[in-house]
Amino acid sequence: MNKQQILQLFEAVQKGKLTPEAAAERLQHLPDEDLGFAKIDHHRVLRQGMPETVYAPGKTPEQVEEIVRRMLRHSPNVLVTRATRVMAARVKRVAKDAQFHTLSGSIAIRRDTTQYARGAILVVSAGTSDIPVAEEAVVAAELMGNPVSHLYDVGVAGIHRLMTRREELSKARVIICVAGMEGALPSVVAGLVAAPVIAVPTSVGYGASFKGVTALLAMLNSCASNVAVVNIDNGFGAACFATMVNRCSEPRP
Amino acid sequence: MNKQQILQLFEAVQKGKLTPEAAAERLQHLPDEDLGFAKIDHHRVLRQGMPETVYAPGKTPEQVEEIVRRMLRHSPNVLVTRATRVMAARVKRVAKDAQFHTLSGSIAIRRDTTQYARGAILVVSAGTSDIPVAEEAVVAAELMGNPVSHLYDVGVAGIHRLMTRREELSKARVIICVAGMEGALPSVVAGLVAAPVIAVPTSVGYGASFKGVTALLAMLNSCASNVAVVNIDNGFGAACFATMVNRCSEPRP
Amino acid sequence: MNKQQILQLFEAVQKGKLTPEAAAERLQHLPDEDLGFAKIDHHRVLRQGMPETVYAPGKTPEQVEEIVRRMLRHSPNVLVTRATRVMAARVKRVAKDAQFHTLSGSIAIRRDTTQYARGAILVVSAGTSDIPVAEEAVVAAELMGNPVSHLYDVGVAGIHRLMTRREELSKARVIICVAGMEGALPSVVAGLVAAPVIAVPTSVGYGASFKGVTALLAMLNSCASNVAVVNIDNGFGAACFATMVNRCSEPRP
Amino acid sequence: MNKQQILQLFEAVQKGKLTPEAAAERLQHLPDEDLGFAKIDHHRVLRQGMPETVYAPGKTPEQVEEIVRRMLRHSPNVLVTRATRVMAARVKRVAKDAQFHTLSGSIAIRRDTTQYARGAILVVSAGTSDIPVAEEAVVAAELMGNPVSHLYDVGVAGIHRLMTRREELSKARVIICVAGMEGALPSVVAGLVAAPVIAVPTSVGYGASFKGVTALLAMLNSCASNVAVVNIDNGFGAACFATMVNRCSEPRP
Amino acid sequence: MNKQQILQLFEAVQKGKLTPEAAAERLQHLPDEDLGFAKIDHHRVLRQGMPETVYAPGKTPEQVEEIVRRMLRHSPNVLVTRATRVMAARVKRVAKDAQFHTLSGSIAIRRDTTQYARGAILVVSAGTSDIPVAEEAVVAAELMGNPVSHLYDVGVAGIHRLMTRREELSKARVIICVAGMEGALPSVVAGLVAAPVIAVPTSVGYGASFKGVTALLAMLNSCASNVAVVNIDNGFGAACFATMVNRCSEPRP
Amino acid sequence: MNKQQILQLFEAVQKGKLTPEAAAERLQHLPDEDLGFAKIDHHRVLRQGMPETVYAPGKTPEQVEEIVRRMLRHSPNVLVTRATRVMAARVKRVAKDAQFHTLSGSIAIRRDTTQYARGAILVVSAGTSDIPVAEEAVVAAELMGNPVSHLYDVGVAGIHRLMTRREELSKARVIICVAGMEGALPSVVAGLVAAPVIAVPTSVGYGASFKGVTALLAMLNSCASNVAVVNIDNGFGAACFATMVNRCSEPRP
Amino acid sequence: MNKQQILQLFEAVQKGKLTPEAAAERLQHLPDEDLGFAKIDHHRVLRQGMPETVYAPGKTPEQVEEIVRRMLRHSPNVLVTRATRVMAARVKRVAKDAQFHTLSGSIAIRRDTTQYARGAILVVSAGTSDIPVAEEAVVAAELMGNPVSHLYDVGVAGIHRLMTRREELSKARVIICVAGMEGALPSVVAGLVAAPVIAVPTSVGYGASFKGVTALLAMLNSCASNVAVVNIDNGFGAACFATMVNRCSEPRP
Amino acid sequence: MNKQQILQLFEAVQKGKLTPEAAAERLQHLPDEDLGFAKIDHHRVLRQGMPETVYAPGKTPEQVEEIVRRMLRHSPNVLVTRATRVMAARVKRVAKDAQFHTLSGSIAIRRDTTQYARGAILVVSAGTSDIPVAEEAVVAAELMGNPVSHLYDVGVAGIHRLMTRREELSKARVIICVAGMEGALPSVVAGLVAAPVIAVPTSVGYGASFKGVTALLAMLNSCASNVAVVNIDNGFGAACFATMVNRCSEPRP
Repeated sequence: MNKQQILQLFEAVQKGKLTPEAAAERLQHLPDEDLGFAKIDHHRVLRQGMPETVYAPGKTPEQVEEIVRRMLRHSPNVLVTRATRVMAARVKRVAKDAQFHTLSGSIAIRRDTTQYARGAILVVSAGTSDIPVAEEAVVAAELMGNPVSHLYDVGVAGIHRLMTRREELSKARVIICVAGMEGALPSVVAGLVAAPVIAVPTSVGYGASFKGVTALLAMLNSCASNVAVVNIDNGFGAACFATMVNRCSEPRP
Repeated sequence: MNKQQILQLFEAVQKGKLTPEAAAERLQHLPDEDLGFAKIDHHRVLRQGMPETVYAPGKTPEQVEEIVRRMLRHSPNVLVTRATRVMAARVKRVAKDAQFHTLSGSIAIRRDTTQYARGAILVVSAGTSDIPVAEEAVVAAELMGNPVSHLYDVGVAGIHRLMTRREELSKARVIICVAGMEGALPSVVAGLVAAPVIAVPTSVGYGASFKGVTALLAMLNSCASNVAVVNIDNGFGAACFATMVNRCSEPRP
Repeated sequence: MNKQQILQLFEAVQKGKLTPEAAAERLQHLPDEDLGFAKIDHHRVLRQGMPETVYAPGKTPEQVEEIVRRMLRHSPNVLVTRATRVMAARVKRVAKDAQFHTLSGSIAIRRDTTQYARGAILVVSAGTSDIPVAEEAVVAAELMGNPVSHLYDVGVAGIHRLMTRREELSKARVIICVAGMEGALPSVVAGLVAAPVIAVPTSVGYGASFKGVTALLAMLNSCASNVAVVNIDNGFGAACFATMVNRCSEPRP
Repeated sequence: MNKQQILQLFEAVQKGKLTPEAAAERLQHLPDEDLGFAKIDHHRVLRQGMPETVYAPGKTPEQVEEIVRRMLRHSPNVLVTRATRVMAARVKRVAKDAQFHTLSGSIAIRRDTTQYARGAILVVSAGTSDIPVAEEAVVAAELMGNPVSHLYDVGVAGIHRLMTRREELSKARVIICVAGMEGALPSVVAGLVAAPVIAVPTSVGYGASFKGVTALLAMLNSCASNVAVVNIDNGFGAACFATMVNRCSEPRP
Repeated sequence: MNKQQILQLFEAVQKGKLTPEAAAERLQHLPDEDLGFAKIDHHRVLRQGMPETVYAPGKTPEQVEEIVRRMLRHSPNVLVTRATRVMAARVKRVAKDAQFHTLSGSIAIRRDTTQYARGAILVVSAGTSDIPVAEEAVVAAELMGNPVSHLYDVGVAGIHRLMTRREELSKARVIICVAGMEGALPSVVAGLVAAPVIAVPTSVGYGASFKGVTALLAMLNSCASNVAVVNIDNGFGAACFATMVNRCSEPRP
Repeated sequence: MNKQQILQLFEAVQKGKLTPEAAAERLQHLPDEDLGFAKIDHHRVLRQGMPETVYAPGKTPEQVEEIVRRMLRHSPNVLVTRATRVMAARVKRVAKDAQFHTLSGSIAIRRDTTQYARGAILVVSAGTSDIPVAEEAVVAAELMGNPVSHLYDVGVAGIHRLMTRREELSKARVIICVAGMEGALPSVVAGLVAAPVIAVPTSVGYGASFKGVTALLAMLNSCASNVAVVNIDNGFGAACFATMVNRCSEPRP
Repeated sequence: MNKQQILQLFEAVQKGKLTPEAAAERLQHLPDEDLGFAKIDHHRVLRQGMPETVYAPGKTPEQVEEIVRRMLRHSPNVLVTRATRVMAARVKRVAKDAQFHTLSGSIAIRRDTTQYARGAILVVSAGTSDIPVAEEAVVAAELMGNPVSHLYDVGVAGIHRLMTRREELSKARVIICVAGMEGALPSVVAGLVAAPVIAVPTSVGYGASFKGVTALLAMLNSCASNVAVVNIDNGFGAACFATMVNRCSEPRP
Repeated sequence: MNKQQILQLFEAVQKGKLTPEAAAERLQHLPDEDLGFAKIDHHRVLRQGMPETVYAPGKTPEQVEEIVRRMLRHSPNVLVTRATRVMAARVKRVAKDAQFHTLSGSIAIRRDTTQYARGAILVVSAGTSDIPVAEEAVVAAELMGNPVSHLYDVGVAGIHRLMTRREELSKARVIICVAGMEGALPSVVAGLVAAPVIAVPTSVGYGASFKGVTALLAMLNSCASNVAVVNIDNGFGAACFATMVNRCSEPRP
């Protein structure tokens, strides 16, 4: 029930078509969010261009295909994360334009290519093994209508490679910083820029890396104050958060 | 805004005192729970006799006194948990009938002595050091209008003491079972009865007891299936949960 | 040796068929629980209708079939938890009426359909991935003779869906609340009702969800006081505990 | 050495005042960041209005006084976090306009009151005990030149209080969400808005709250995707991050 | 009710003083362990000479004094562990012969000096800081009637000191091995002897020693197979266990 | 070099066949344990009848076969732990008398059937799933020449089953107590006997059982003082320790 | 751009071929490490003979082959760690001289056999299962141009074996000490020598060994002060560190 | 018994003063390390100049004074770590030349000022709060006869400060790298040098820094391979290890 319907309810009472008691009764049984239309409208604007998303692990290729088919009915953009090649083949049956990004296992369908924000999102990653998570962030952020670039293999043990790319770092409005093992990269990057840095620990490493916990803890304890952290391997979540940051800097309608 | 007020709104429109637009506008700004009065009334019945509660740690005796004073204006029963003797003296200034239970540091003011449920709550504890937490549960459960009894010092290393009290165990409608160290008591007790057993781990122990974590984990892994667990040392929470169980067995109005 | 047998022992002494010494000797060697018949009878009433249960993991389909066959000799209702489709096929050989619930892997044989308690148990779950654990609770609670209903996919990040179902929540005598990831649902649900809420953490999530530990800890720290917790993924245990709560509110024979 | 100085170096060579060898030698010994002036200028703009900050624990009141005295020579705004009343008295000797916020122990000196960003930062907190951390965020964010408002005591166990404040939530450009115990608030808040939510776990709780670890883990596993997390009790860090987000949405000079 | 009483019960029935029904009734209400006298007698023999024990932390000197006074009524030997000098002074009021061992804080009253087992218990410890726990084991084991000797400061980083004492090691019937930090001593000692080694981790260390957890884990993973472990700092428990081992090798009465 | 050889060295010097310098030189290069023959002899007695043992995981059936073949050359008894059926078949090629115990995966070859100690070792276990570990202890303890009996399925949630077997418990000289989940059994058993109880946690359980860690911690915190603990699932180690305890009670040669 | 190029830049300005402005501009865009040529040269000397290294897990045999092919173009020595037999076969296609070490899964190609340091590196290991990690260290250290020897199977439970090899221990300039389970070996070894001991915990063990964490913690808490630790199973890292130690003792060019 | 004594033993036999049997007997009872004099002599050279060390926590000022007094009888250099000002005053009574370093609480008495190694040890630290641990390393390394310099406050969030000091970094033979919080500094430093880097995590930080555990884990997972780690806050241990590295590069006598 939107504002229009509520207005009609009062008008019906005004016109004598409905008793106040009957109208009050009907109002009681409304789901309460129906009253919040202004906010929902407002949200809709900000949410425009956000893809429907499927987390593939634990689903069969058939299930993924079917879910994507249904999503495409109302959403122009769809993202499947952590998918297999077999899943991608199934999805292409219902969407020939689906792109499969092999490193991250992301399947992206992008039919709405509007740019919903102008700030640049830069995805930085430390080691070669961190690239799948970084790529998941890149693919997702692009699908959400952001200008995205990336900078891979700039781990802190070879700090020179990072130092020569400061220009690119300082141009970004938001930085997503992906690292496993000791998770030191976000601290160094955040010290070089005046932008928010979203740190993504990865499960890369062995032994006392504890599947990403060490990197996660290191990032939470960053001595740089412009760092916030998402869950281990959560490239998609970092892209969502970065998109929110990026969009909130746009003039609102 | 209760049902009466909503009705008046519609009546005002009916009578032409308010345009439908103005009424719709006013409705938009209502806090949504105001529409849920029936449920709130229903809750009120079940919540009758629940004491207002103050968690004392981190507060000064003066603050405790002041909070209790204000609570007494609308609540007949008040409970202060983990209080000191000094706090109790301050509270007695505003409530001469306040009782201080020294072992648990509970201050209880009980002016509504209605019995809100008839089932017996039995509080069982393992070692002498567990008694403060057990007593907190006893005091709180009594203040909530339950018939309460207790059975202390029946730890599993002297299983005979527990076995001779099976009669009392089987009479209880709900059992609160308090234990530190290896936290084994709830499993044994739950195996002897056909009632829900609420397990309360205590921080009693040293070394690998990890301030109650060992007892907590043991209780969560109970091989008896009628055991559920609350937080470490949370005698008060166990009493609340037990009260809910006890009251839900009363005929509803 | 039941009460009758003890009486016969004394009568034998009375009649001179047995010396006091021989009778005392015989008594010494009795298993002690034989003396506790009254309590056991009492238990029997409360335990009526509880199914025999098999935890399937680690057993072969043949073993499951054989165990079920033997159980059916003395128990009308049998539950196999976390079973596979192959196990279900084997079980159907010995019980054509066995139902296989694919999401949770529960096999249920229900020949005693008596309703042992009248209060409604409501199973609420947060995300799609939590449904298998929720379903295990539903199937088990039904088999134990409770009226059961459920409410799925009402996670806290879309709080509106939950808010519109408050009516259903408030009708339940006991609520089982199933959630993975941040495990926030039980706190919100418990704040909306005046009934005991049994929280079941699930191993749903990745990275810092630590296979359900995060959800478990969150639930133990609920700011609502009518929450108690069972082990991770323990839908069956929650159903048992809820049944105990539900039955303890029935008039005793 | 800024661009001007480098230019002068080359001009000195051009004019024959310096040999190429001497110039090259002098260049070798420059700190390398001196070459990055464009970026530094750029940073300076974004960093304008950021206060100098002192973390008080482990320092004597005398040390705090002395550090603040020196900071005030070059920085108009100074913040001391987690200070005591005694420290505040010492600081007032060197800065009569210092404000002491007792709940958070923050000492704020604000002489540059420029508003460096226009977006609203909203600080939301769950329980009364979380207010000190929330207040630290509020004080810091204001000192950094942001419009700041707050919404306290809207914990998830009383979800109605939060639901009635959705208007305020949806107006914020960035939200800082502070909660201890089960740390559920950020998930609920993030589900109600389309803005980035910075989650701050607090060490509020006892037993299995593990001094904030439970809240931290819960927040990292939020089922809402617009949540990122900072360290336990780090109200100051959340304010810094929020300020970066807020400023990056301003038109750049 | 001992065997005598049960016999009298049957005799009363035999003599017609009691009906079988009344006797059966009376028997029902007996605590069940009263029937187990033979076993209890048997235990009594093995338990002879075991001191009554008080764990002092959390008690006032007055309470310790009072508890000891009461214990001395029925127990010739009394042990107070982790006591203070002030407590020792209070205890001496009621037992002039009380010995205070300052390093471990043990107060020992030994009036029954019977030697209950002949095997030698040897207490070995690694560093100087481990001596308090070792001494607690020595004092307790002596009070329990064992021949006890000790070997201190034979940590593994100076393996020569240990190697020169192999003679003493091989003479012991049971070894208690006390170590903090890396907890390596029990493995080395156990490799040198053919006796059971009871490992006691201590909370000695800092940083990643985690208050004894590292030593505890190391001992549980000993590559020697004649090692079993007790709780951190539990010198008393090790002495009890060693006494059981020592006594079980005595001919039974 | 045994005592004989050392004597010959001195005799050679005495007889002038060797200069003191040459003899001293030769002595310098001796492995030092060669001097310790008396102790080694002594050990040999206690070690008689201890089987050579192979830990099978990570080895191929061929490797197991080959290792066993070589062991049989000098050791009459051989034990292979955690082996597969295929490994057992291979071992039977070299030892037709090898017994395969399927539950625990133990392969036992027993050619020396001497009874090296007379005390009874009793292996007690809690649930059905704990039997493999219990059986490993039984098989190993028998192979080491102990009289062994067992008592399975006496978990604490059905305490009656345990209580009726107290006679067997009290006859044991050493008890090995095997339990997973909450690990409560050793505390109850140890409270019923006056013998040393060796607790073996098992990895049985799920969720917060953490593969045996919960049971391990519970056992370390036993409120009974005659309990010591070995590593998770370490039935073999418990058998070794129990054998040492049992043998140390034999008269020494 | 090396020093020469910078000099040319200044000379160009001196000679009027370049304006100061253009020269300053060009300088701005230089990667900053180009200025650090002296240090890089210096590094090159120390890095001579270090092999290019591939961590095989997660790569296909084809990828490993391709990576090795490219590495061999500029590096005489190449190491592949944790490789399979299949990978080794592929690598031999491009390098017939590749050696496959089956225990550690190391593939070594050594074409530069220069000895870059003269000090002896000794690799010591505790149990048979630790040999793969030890061998990885041996192979890597040899490839890096060190004289390497090893000493296996000298675990602390049979301390005699270690004691007889003290001569070899004391000859080493650096010791790499590999152990799993309780990780006690480095403490004992370090106590016997006056050389740096690099401790490598292995994931050998089960239950409370927590895949090497126990050994890691034990080593970090070594009571010997000449011990430093690398990550679990990191034989390669230990070899690198040992090489650095060994080379830093060579006279510098 | 040194070589001389052994020789005398053989001479006594040669001269007929002792029978071979008596001599063999006497030899049996020698502590075995007495035979190892050559090695001990060798050690002595490497150990020359190592100070006697007292770990002050848990000791009274009187005890520290007394221990130092005794140590000075045979050792020219003495170090007291983590001492208080009061302890320093007591030590000055027995050693007027004692130096008290207030930041680290180190008391140093240095009477042997020989330089035992020529390589430079550089101590690098991240934040101001890490200086006490760094200073402990500096003081200890100097007392052990090394040339020592330091570089403080070069945390990774301000990477420029570190980059400008690369010259100093590359001159060091060994680097001790001290950092708390995210512990990222050793990775960056190790990437800039070709020397061994000993990483010292500090307990600096709050919340998820877990008193240094986060820094410790990060350092163990360093992506640079020339990093090894010591215990949290163990500045002294790092100095010892660095000294061993430094001395092992000296020509041996």
